[in-house]
Amino acid sequence: MNLIILEPGETSASGEVCLSDGRAAHLLNVLKVAPGSQVRVGILDGPRGVGAVESIVDATVAMRCAFEPHAPSRPRVDLLLALPRPKVMRRLWAQIAALGVGQIILTNAERVERSYFDTHVLTPGCYRPLLIEGLQQARDTWLPGVSIHRQFKVLVEDELDRLFTDGLRLVASTIAASPTGATIRPGIDQRVLIAVGPEGGWNDFEMALLAAHGFEAINMGPRTLRTDTACIALLALAHDATTPRQSSHT
Amino acid sequence: MNLIILEPGETSASGEVCLSDGRAAHLLNVLKVAPGSQVRVGILDGPRGVGAVESIVDATVAMRCAFEPHAPSRPRVDLLLALPRPKVMRRLWAQIAALGVGQIILTNAERVERSYFDTHVLTPGCYRPLLIEGLQQARDTWLPGVSIHRQFKVLVEDELDRLFTDGLRLVASTIAASPTGATIRPGIDQRVLIAVGPEGGWNDFEMALLAAHGFEAINMGPRTLRTDTACIALLALAHDATTPRQSSHT
Repeated sequence: MNLIILEPGETSASGEVCLSDGRAAHLLNVLKVAPGSQVRVGILDGPRGVGAVESIVDATVAMRCAFEPHAPSRPRVDLLLALPRPKVMRRLWAQIAALGVGQIILTNAERVERSYFDTHVLTPGCYRPLLIEGLQQARDTWLPGVSIHRQFKVLVEDELDRLFTDGLRLVASTIAASPTGATIRPGIDQRVLIAVGPEGGWNDFEMALLAAHGFEAINMGPRTLRTDTACIALLALAHDATTPRQSSHT
Repeated sequence: MNLIILEPGETSASGEVCLSDGRAAHLLNVLKVAPGSQVRVGILDGPRGVGAVESIVDATVAMRCAFEPHAPSRPRVDLLLALPRPKVMRRLWAQIAALGVGQIILTNAERVERSYFDTHVLTPGCYRPLLIEGLQQARDTWLPGVSIHRQFKVLVEDELDRLFTDGLRLVASTIAASPTGATIRPGIDQRVLIAVGPEGGWNDFEMALLAAHGFEAINMGPRTLRTDTACIALLALAHDATTPRQSSHT
């Protein structure tokens, strides 16, 4: 836990907060804080700051927090993901949040089993703590939005323009010509939406529908990756490609 | 399983092979082959090819294989990894092999717990099948070399020049200036070695020793990632950066 995340409203107007849950246990047992210790804190969807430990009584940690004036900016990358099997999805939540996405759009596809949509891994009670775990790892406070779509065609044709208004739409493919880093060239502040297909890939209809709705193919190379590996790899490439270059490389 | 991997010597001189283990079960139950079916096959550390199913008797599949003249080339990327905890390492083997590395150099570091080295996850009996699983996923046949080093200083000072003779040495860092894709610019055919530190990072001595032995810092951005996420992200970036550009991008 590289950042202790607080819920909005959990601190008083003057920045005081008392913790007695898992975060307090982490402060006491892992970070081994004492009165006077300072730790990194952040408000969910809000600014980061520093919490100074004021007292520890019966495993309850009282802190006074001071926050930066601005919240971190929303990650520029969004993810459209054909729902993988529950065990894989459970592992992915925290990793996706750690890599940083503005929103996660989960969709059906021909090669997604229908039963995957009935799992508790898709309930906020399951995925919200996992997303927050990822944020605490990566020192971010931006909780990714999550939407779940059981009809791929309806999503792409009717809902996607509202979810992803403007920006670069990309879909991983083995037929594109150039490496991903050379293909992703968004404008300044332009958002990027990355579509990752199911195990076995999108079918021809799905690829054609994505292409008809502005998705460009990017090449992940000749290796077929598992959904979770591909997801992490593509998010890393998208983030790297959208990071401003500080040298003379172009 | 996108490629059925055969051990060297498992086929006859004329390319015949009989399978009755998990690969046969996969052929029968997942790929649902029948006599006449063709499947992708590959010899470990050797060429890929096509296997034609000749007969199926009592869950034993007999195939005749024809192989390409050359084996796939060795992946240009090598990985130096501070040993993560066993549960994480177990999950990583297949993913690393799927992304493709020439070799995996596992090392100790101050922030690696000594007990991690005593786990069966580091025995070939455990990791070899997992590496092959990754190769079968990615349709590769190159089995990564594995070496395990309990002394970081001895590894970097005395052993690394033999393991990694010539090429670009990189270490992930939060202080480097440019994005990874803009930093990794190996020469044609030059190999790339990526060093990934433990949870909590390399200590100052370790970073200094790496720098003194030719490792350049690459920037993964301000987000602190879990070892497994960082590992996959960096291998993806290294592979992408070493893929020849087919467009006019530079």
